[in-house]
Amino acid sequence: MRRMRLKAALCFAAAMIPVIASANQALEKDSQDPNQWILPLGSYAGIRHSKLAQITPANAAKLRVAWTMSTGTLRGQEGQPLVVGNMMYFESSYPNFVYAVNLDNVGQIVWKFAPEQDKFSPSVACCDLVNKGVSYADGKILVTTLDTHVYALDAKTGKVAWSAQNGDPQMGQTMTIAPLVVHDKVIVGISGGEYGVRGHLTAYDLKTGKRVWRANSVGPDSDILFDPDKTIDGGTQKPVGKDSSLKTWNQDEWKLGGGTTWGWYTYDPQLNLVYYGSGNPGTWNPTQRPGDNKWSTTLFARNPDTGVAAWAYQMTPHDAWDYDGINESVLTDSAVNGATVPTLTHFDRNGFAYVLDRRNGKLVAAHKFDPSTNWANEIDLKTGRPILNPTKMTKEGVNVKDICPAAQGAKNHQPASYDPKTKLFYVGTNHICMDYQAFSVKYRSGFPYVGAVVSMYPADHGDVRGRLIAFDAVTGETKWAINDTFQDYSGTLTTDGNVVFYGTLDGWFKAVDENTGKVLYQFHTPSGIISNPITYMRDGKQYVAVLSGVGGWAAIGLAEGLTKGTEGLGAVGLTRSLAEYTNLGGTLLVFSLE
Amino acid sequence: MRRMRLKAALCFAAAMIPVIASANQALEKDSQDPNQWILPLGSYAGIRHSKLAQITPANAAKLRVAWTMSTGTLRGQEGQPLVVGNMMYFESSYPNFVYAVNLDNVGQIVWKFAPEQDKFSPSVACCDLVNKGVSYADGKILVTTLDTHVYALDAKTGKVAWSAQNGDPQMGQTMTIAPLVVHDKVIVGISGGEYGVRGHLTAYDLKTGKRVWRANSVGPDSDILFDPDKTIDGGTQKPVGKDSSLKTWNQDEWKLGGGTTWGWYTYDPQLNLVYYGSGNPGTWNPTQRPGDNKWSTTLFARNPDTGVAAWAYQMTPHDAWDYDGINESVLTDSAVNGATVPTLTHFDRNGFAYVLDRRNGKLVAAHKFDPSTNWANEIDLKTGRPILNPTKMTKEGVNVKDICPAAQGAKNHQPASYDPKTKLFYVGTNHICMDYQAFSVKYRSGFPYVGAVVSMYPADHGDVRGRLIAFDAVTGETKWAINDTFQDYSGTLTTDGNVVFYGTLDGWFKAVDENTGKVLYQFHTPSGIISNPITYMRDGKQYVAVLSGVGGWAAIGLAEGLTKGTEGLGAVGLTRSLAEYTNLGGTLLVFSLE
Repeated sequence: MRRMRLKAALCFAAAMIPVIASANQALEKDSQDPNQWILPLGSYAGIRHSKLAQITPANAAKLRVAWTMSTGTLRGQEGQPLVVGNMMYFESSYPNFVYAVNLDNVGQIVWKFAPEQDKFSPSVACCDLVNKGVSYADGKILVTTLDTHVYALDAKTGKVAWSAQNGDPQMGQTMTIAPLVVHDKVIVGISGGEYGVRGHLTAYDLKTGKRVWRANSVGPDSDILFDPDKTIDGGTQKPVGKDSSLKTWNQDEWKLGGGTTWGWYTYDPQLNLVYYGSGNPGTWNPTQRPGDNKWSTTLFARNPDTGVAAWAYQMTPHDAWDYDGINESVLTDSAVNGATVPTLTHFDRNGFAYVLDRRNGKLVAAHKFDPSTNWANEIDLKTGRPILNPTKMTKEGVNVKDICPAAQGAKNHQPASYDPKTKLFYVGTNHICMDYQAFSVKYRSGFPYVGAVVSMYPADHGDVRGRLIAFDAVTGETKWAINDTFQDYSGTLTTDGNVVFYGTLDGWFKAVDENTGKVLYQFHTPSGIISNPITYMRDGKQYVAVLSGVGGWAAIGLAEGLTKGTEGLGAVGLTRSLAEYTNLGGTLLVFSLE
Repeated sequence: MRRMRLKAALCFAAAMIPVIASANQALEKDSQDPNQWILPLGSYAGIRHSKLAQITPANAAKLRVAWTMSTGTLRGQEGQPLVVGNMMYFESSYPNFVYAVNLDNVGQIVWKFAPEQDKFSPSVACCDLVNKGVSYADGKILVTTLDTHVYALDAKTGKVAWSAQNGDPQMGQTMTIAPLVVHDKVIVGISGGEYGVRGHLTAYDLKTGKRVWRANSVGPDSDILFDPDKTIDGGTQKPVGKDSSLKTWNQDEWKLGGGTTWGWYTYDPQLNLVYYGSGNPGTWNPTQRPGDNKWSTTLFARNPDTGVAAWAYQMTPHDAWDYDGINESVLTDSAVNGATVPTLTHFDRNGFAYVLDRRNGKLVAAHKFDPSTNWANEIDLKTGRPILNPTKMTKEGVNVKDICPAAQGAKNHQPASYDPKTKLFYVGTNHICMDYQAFSVKYRSGFPYVGAVVSMYPADHGDVRGRLIAFDAVTGETKWAINDTFQDYSGTLTTDGNVVFYGTLDGWFKAVDENTGKVLYQFHTPSGIISNPITYMRDGKQYVAVLSGVGGWAAIGLAEGLTKGTEGLGAVGLTRSLAEYTNLGGTLLVFSLE
């Protein structure tokens, strides 16, 4: 019996090696080819920077729309196309159509995948029916759908190679993330932080779709895949010890503990660690869940093969403001006190830009990137904990006013970019504040488990709700900023041409001089932009592609048709005038020089 | 009492005069301003030709998309924007959003009208949930909705001035037409020819919304507003006589007689006549309704103030092929035997281009514009009747093969254009044939009353399903033709710049040299084009605007999500591969030179 097990294990290993080699090495190699855009974030490091340099500040005014294609859906478009050889792949908002388009024959849809979905799932998606896009690996297109399915499709035909169910919409679980493929693992997360969902990261076998590991964000050590003796607490730089999560929750409240995983994931092949953040703790009412509520609002580093956590760093202990920690971690080198440190930079929704040593989670710097941030005065670099502003602490039954940033975050989850030349981050940010009134809420499976009423408005009650910033995360210096009327919800893209691309909530796609912040070109797309521009080269021409299609939390009023008479209702009130400037609709636009 | 009535009548007259003057004269005058596009067809004559000349064959290659806007809907877009001063107005497909957009502040939606509609109406719309656009008159925007409402909106605010109900969706009645305003009348039609609906043209008072007259297409003289002694039969040039419709129907079948009025209407101010066509007779099974089935598939000329018919000309007596006669009548002068005749030119769905003296309905010429046309050999100019090909006559229980054109028509209802310089018509046409098998059908209110199974395919079973032609309607000469893969469903637009604009079902918007047929510029829009380009001038720049959004009968498979496994099912089979080249989605695109 033991021999048979050993034999099975060996066979398993033998079978896996080629896949590991092809998927991982090919992805790493191909993602360095600037002619393609093969990973959702463009690279494992997530810097969203391209070496293409055909479009420059000198010629960007000559950009024009080269071609377009409808997504066939109306809800918010949060994804981006992949470019693999002569093919482009992208996924729409719900009902999550996936398209394979021939770049050598404009307009040709080689295949379309239209998944049959659990019709219940749209009713439990908190903040529009979005999706952050597909991944590619080993001849497969990896897809997540709102109803928590993971599909592997044959990239050539669109035929389903395997599918897996990662959650249960009846419990309020949904999926909106783009999978990350590392080695032979398809790594995915889960949404539903407003429905008492306990978040997790899960790895499926790329070849078979079999679940390999699952790491919860909160709960017993065996669930969260923490080694009490080896997993490091980034804040203290000590091992987390036994029951590091359980100890920070009241009784069984951890079972509804949130910490969902609906953001972006990055990967360091040298350290063999995957980085991601967890969302807010279950219920927005902090009075109902005393304690730090670990490991919600936390940055994790995990081994992609086993799921075991190398370290974890909690940014907003006992989150009392819905400051999900799910934003992306961008992997760069940073000059810290004269030394070059492999860092992770994370622009958190709570208004601080965290720079951590990504080997161990040690905090290197933490600066406010939105100047209005007032819930905490600073982050103590020694303990890793925020120095709170007691006047902005929320509690049940009290309407706490003028908290900055608002729950939508000082930065939405869409990813920033980093240009190694300028050593600056280019970040679409929000400039909004809120009143927050917590109330007691009882859990009921599949129903909202929110426990707070939030009213959001522009910071300083002014006309600026969004800012594109060029930011030095180590020093905290803002080199330049563009003020926008609405929240800057889109991702950014930088290039060796020194042009940064982004879009606005009211639909303007802009090319900006990286050095000066000057807008070089702008185009009014059919709808608002909450997605992420990408770039590629085909037949000697540099193209920039972006999905237009307003939605997400910032435009939930538009998406749900709630624009009339809903002033003052939190997010809806915040965006009530967005309907005067944009409209639902999904379109892929591809730009190039004439 | 009599005095009071007289007084009331005088007051009424006094109140009406300014409206007549302002609406009619202003529309006539403003429609001649090439900087605006104030009538749906651009002019009362419906020539769809603009005097703007900035875009020429020499520079059209430098066209680019200036700006875009989503319609907020996915179903087929059949309309076009109006441009009135600095405002643009347009209506989307169902649910029939109407937008007022500020041309001086790109992206600003000044108001949006979202009508509440009878939820039943989409289920009885035969061929997608389309709309042909709004009209403007006297400070009002006139709107029709699928559920048969007519709205007059304040053009400044979008507020409803009045509304009227023109039909009953429960009976299968819907509305898709653009209203025509003449004098103080808002003239509208009705759809539902596949539901046993008896068609009519109806006039509402522009100021109050009160119904003024209704003229049915079939039925008693009092219903069809025929004067037996004065209304002329265009074919015979004699008065129609008593019961001219009733005599041509079996018993009460006229009550389900069809002749709906879902096309475009034109108007001659000098003759004070409105021109339009009626659709197929009720049930597609000809065996069930012996006789000529007058006045289905007929061109009418009516007095817009009273509705009374000056003349009527039936093109396809006893229509056995679903050859609706609803296509537009373009009003021009024609040189006939050395004389200049005020004519009406009508490219009928049956494959013949009819030229009539629009004063009396007398047939001047009738040439095949689609060479495959074979249901009739010719039209007898003396009698006005077709010389039938007996092998293509359909009857109950027989599958008659290879009839050309197919029921979708040799030309769809979207309007042709006419350039007075070249004296040619520029026409998007279809090049398709069909097998037609009639069967007996019983009427049930609100259910399809079709009675035939139709299978459509390209003419000659080839790769060409659509042709843009430059055509001399008097001589029947085709000056040039562009072959397209799919049916050419869009309207056309000609200009004094000698450029003709149109769009294809697979989404290419094209600028073509009027003289040579050479494609000067083409752009891949987000979706297929079944709408009508317009042009206007603003701040010295010529713009061309078009709605992209595939749908209509040609794309009903796409619109209803029927693209899989539906080969051979009539229209759906015909367009089955359209899904490989385009996608649902509604977008307004505005083009200009750089």
